[in-house]
Amino acid sequence: MRAQMTDTSDSLAKPTIRDIARIAGVSVATVSRVINDRPDVSAETRDAVQRLIRAHNFSTNRSARALSVGRTGLIGLTIPYVLGDYFTAILSGATEALHEEDMRAVLCPTLHLHDREVTLMDRLMRGTTDGAILVLPSESQEELHDLQRQGWPFVIVDSRQPLADDLPAVYAAHLAGARAATDHLLELGHRRIAHITGQSGWFATEERINGYQAALINAGLPVRPELIVNGNFEIESGRTGAHVLLGLAEPPTAIFASNDNMAVGAIQAARERGLRVPEDLSVVGFDDADISRIVTPMLTTVRQPLEEMGRMAVSLLTRLLEQQRVETLRIELATRLVLRESTAPPPS
Amino acid sequence: MRAQMTDTSDSLAKPTIRDIARIAGVSVATVSRVINDRPDVSAETRDAVQRLIRAHNFSTNRSARALSVGRTGLIGLTIPYVLGDYFTAILSGATEALHEEDMRAVLCPTLHLHDREVTLMDRLMRGTTDGAILVLPSESQEELHDLQRQGWPFVIVDSRQPLADDLPAVYAAHLAGARAATDHLLELGHRRIAHITGQSGWFATEERINGYQAALINAGLPVRPELIVNGNFEIESGRTGAHVLLGLAEPPTAIFASNDNMAVGAIQAARERGLRVPEDLSVVGFDDADISRIVTPMLTTVRQPLEEMGRMAVSLLTRLLEQQRVETLRIELATRLVLRESTAPPPS
Repeated sequence: MRAQMTDTSDSLAKPTIRDIARIAGVSVATVSRVINDRPDVSAETRDAVQRLIRAHNFSTNRSARALSVGRTGLIGLTIPYVLGDYFTAILSGATEALHEEDMRAVLCPTLHLHDREVTLMDRLMRGTTDGAILVLPSESQEELHDLQRQGWPFVIVDSRQPLADDLPAVYAAHLAGARAATDHLLELGHRRIAHITGQSGWFATEERINGYQAALINAGLPVRPELIVNGNFEIESGRTGAHVLLGLAEPPTAIFASNDNMAVGAIQAARERGLRVPEDLSVVGFDDADISRIVTPMLTTVRQPLEEMGRMAVSLLTRLLEQQRVETLRIELATRLVLRESTAPPPS
Repeated sequence: MRAQMTDTSDSLAKPTIRDIARIAGVSVATVSRVINDRPDVSAETRDAVQRLIRAHNFSTNRSARALSVGRTGLIGLTIPYVLGDYFTAILSGATEALHEEDMRAVLCPTLHLHDREVTLMDRLMRGTTDGAILVLPSESQEELHDLQRQGWPFVIVDSRQPLADDLPAVYAAHLAGARAATDHLLELGHRRIAHITGQSGWFATEERINGYQAALINAGLPVRPELIVNGNFEIESGRTGAHVLLGLAEPPTAIFASNDNMAVGAIQAARERGLRVPEDLSVVGFDDADISRIVTPMLTTVRQPLEEMGRMAVSLLTRLLEQQRVETLRIELATRLVLRESTAPPPS
């Protein structure tokens, strides 16, 4: 390496990161690690690369760097909708983190349409984007693996299905969150606790059902099928589901809904039946979306760090783009219970 | 024109829209009008251009067309936040309309920071975007005129200030909407009607104050300065403002808030004082955001067609990009009063 190091001629007016790597006799990834102040470079190599960078007046401004390695600074971002607190919080975190990296999102709403999503991915991959963030993608694991084989870096946020470990993904701790919500109701003294599920077959839905059941079983209570009704994450399905539950011969004293929208619907149903929340019925949501503080009573809910999930996706994608070694491609962020006004001990 | 028409040689393997226009002896705009099935082209010209298009195998697929005229299909979209019903509804309408045109938004949240916005505009203009949609931009009219002189097409959505007629803009009928809201309260019999304003100095804020005052004056009522308090479009400012109003020696029987967030805050303040809405206090909002149907009681409000504003901006920008003649650059969309549960006659 020392031989090449002495070659600091001015012949390269605007050296690229590749030129620096070639002259230093190290890999592009190593130069990138030095530029980004990562720890896993020897002091000797770091000094050498830094001297070369100064000698060649190589800009470490990310924008200049992006251009010098042939990047556009554009990241495809597919997302079902740009409406609703849930998706926009992820989007907001991701776009702000991209801004900090001097990158920007090419925004592609998919409306959950698989064909449209596949076409968009194809456009993004063949177009001017460096990589992508896929929020709740509808692609099968095989399709995602295909994309990966084509060498276009991407990170999944909130998968719809369980994913293989080699697919980069960021998601929230669904099971632990659902268990915490159910434990809270158990601690208040509730014994007939119902659950309104999310969209059938989705990973988040199944994990939250598992968390609900695990809490009941752990408390020595039976899982009663009549206390689990199917919803679809929309307000109306929470309202309908709650009416079914509250119409049972032995209605529940508490409902854990798989998201805040459906919890709002459950509160509406209780009101329509002349029941008070939380005096007659406790309700817990999931997400901690803005509406959880708008509704009366304000919702007790499980907070997902949605903006942080968007940010983490950008962080992981950036490392993939810079071909840094990434120890694990799966990032699970903790959820936590937020206590507000919609839960209380059961009526005696 | 006929002379050129016979020149249908195969020398142009991949003709651009400019080539077609040159051969046909018509303007690019005319070819664009034919491709887009616009009515304002003579039958003779239309036939001639269509024959040329077929002869040259010129693709009318927008994607191919975009490439043929050197476009990227990317549109810069600056917006203060990608959070909150208001901004995300505009964003949703714009991105869906762009998708229909096979174009996509490069999303740039500005956080209302003027320096950041100026830098972003500069990046977008020098980068790969064909034009831009600027939602509630912070630029001065002079800065916007400068951008315009540089030949980069853009459309403003919801201006922060009154704009010159030569700046393309889409906005809602603020004054008429505010007047309709106040008239509704007058018709219910209210005489002490208060107003919580939006962010000071913004066009929408001023126009809504004007609409409120016009309705009072038209009803022969005085405008009382103590019944107008300043807010900033956030929930908390509505809550604080309502507490000031409800603490007056002669409190109002109705509050018209300049947006739904502040109306939600006013309802919270009423509840904190033990007042019932609408029995003791009527509240009207502005926007018809999703939260207006989440809050209890559901809000009577003035609907702004936010998604449609995003769509209209894309439509206007598309016409500017295709250099079509646009008769007027200002598009004002009507607002309308939506009656729900938060208004009633004053307590007797």
